[in-house]
Amino acid sequence: MVDTSGPPPNSVLGRAFTLLTAFRVGDAELTLAELCRRTGLPKATAHRLLAELADWDVVERTPTGLRLGMRLFELGQLAPHQRGLREAAAPFLADLFEATHETVHLAVLDGGNPPEVVYLHKLDATSGPKVQSRIGGRMPAHCTGVGKAMLAFSPRSVLDQVLAAGLTRRTPRTVIAPGLLDRELAAIREHGVAEEHEESTVGIACVAAPVLDADGRALAAISITGWANRLDTRRFASAVRTAALGLSRTLRASR
Amino acid sequence: MVDTSGPPPNSVLGRAFTLLTAFRVGDAELTLAELCRRTGLPKATAHRLLAELADWDVVERTPTGLRLGMRLFELGQLAPHQRGLREAAAPFLADLFEATHETVHLAVLDGGNPPEVVYLHKLDATSGPKVQSRIGGRMPAHCTGVGKAMLAFSPRSVLDQVLAAGLTRRTPRTVIAPGLLDRELAAIREHGVAEEHEESTVGIACVAAPVLDADGRALAAISITGWANRLDTRRFASAVRTAALGLSRTLRASR
Repeated sequence: MVDTSGPPPNSVLGRAFTLLTAFRVGDAELTLAELCRRTGLPKATAHRLLAELADWDVVERTPTGLRLGMRLFELGQLAPHQRGLREAAAPFLADLFEATHETVHLAVLDGGNPPEVVYLHKLDATSGPKVQSRIGGRMPAHCTGVGKAMLAFSPRSVLDQVLAAGLTRRTPRTVIAPGLLDRELAAIREHGVAEEHEESTVGIACVAAPVLDADGRALAAISITGWANRLDTRRFASAVRTAALGLSRTLRASR
Repeated sequence: MVDTSGPPPNSVLGRAFTLLTAFRVGDAELTLAELCRRTGLPKATAHRLLAELADWDVVERTPTGLRLGMRLFELGQLAPHQRGLREAAAPFLADLFEATHETVHLAVLDGGNPPEVVYLHKLDATSGPKVQSRIGGRMPAHCTGVGKAMLAFSPRSVLDQVLAAGLTRRTPRTVIAPGLLDRELAAIREHGVAEEHEESTVGIACVAAPVLDADGRALAAISITGWANRLDTRRFASAVRTAALGLSRTLRASR
């Protein structure tokens, strides 16, 4: 990952991606002035780059500003690792959704330092809590069910990176002591299932299971999320584990 | 849209996006040699650009080549038009999926010429046919249920672009006569529902309804897809229409 905190890069590509990554989740669109403010780029430079990005449909002009475009969405969907996993997972996630009527997630750990959870797919329960996660969105690994499920079945170096970056407290129940997290991961390895009880968001619980490769390493994780005071994690553990084992088997068979 | 059929562009950005758009659906990864062959770029140029794209996690190096990266997937998910629609649609699509147990799609028309269908979301039925559509994938508008539902509720100029490009025959049942398509669109305007009977894919049928803005123009479409000889399109028409009307109302209320 490129560090985006310093002055804007000198290369054309660097400047173009500085502009694209200046868009955040809440931004429906941004004005040229706001894009210059966020990126530190001179107005003439930003204007010229955005015009060319618009020619490629990577950004779209609106009456009052600019927004990320359809072409970027389409290109992003071609990223093969994410696509292959999501397509193989789709029937397992659909089964789980039908069986439980709770919100279902598929997530991976990204390759960054520290590794974070990125959601690849989500099926929204029509009742239950409005879960803040979104497809393509990120969360810390140490305080989410999917994150802990994957950390438990990853090389020790992955956990070391997470610990080195520090365990951020997100709620009063977030586990921030490295020793406690380590012990919990050992229990997850034993049972094959990870639980989260209001560790990332107050009021929300989840139960997750890892999707494993032939060497027993986590490729992804599947979870069910619901109200902390209502989700029967013990009851749902077998359903999530069954779906994750089924997907693991399918992925191994397709290699 | 930039024409990608000619010689490679001279600008750095143009060359970078020529490289990124050289990846197709079937490509898990490409070698540098294959990327040069597809784009017409000299090896040294392609190598330098790909190294910078890899610094931004836009492409990822593999032991044998290069693939589109996680960062591109994440950026694409931020495209606001697609994201807002998909998030508003998620509960309606989930309801429809639970009620019908068939494959459910959400699609829009892109802004290209001719306009084409782009799928924003898909819930895969665990039984029924394996539908070839994919999130972020495209289909012609004239032969798909969602495409016809949107063409019927779009300005005449949109249909004119589709007709000018020619109605490609995809199956023996594809409607390729402009007059027939025009008449069918009039019927769709009257009933608020579009059907497709093996017009894009042999063996597959679908029923679709448009998501409309306050002026009665199509913003998107929702469909249910199944086996042509089994899908009871008449029975499902009211379910699809109800979901599309509900989403239309939700989108109008949020503006």
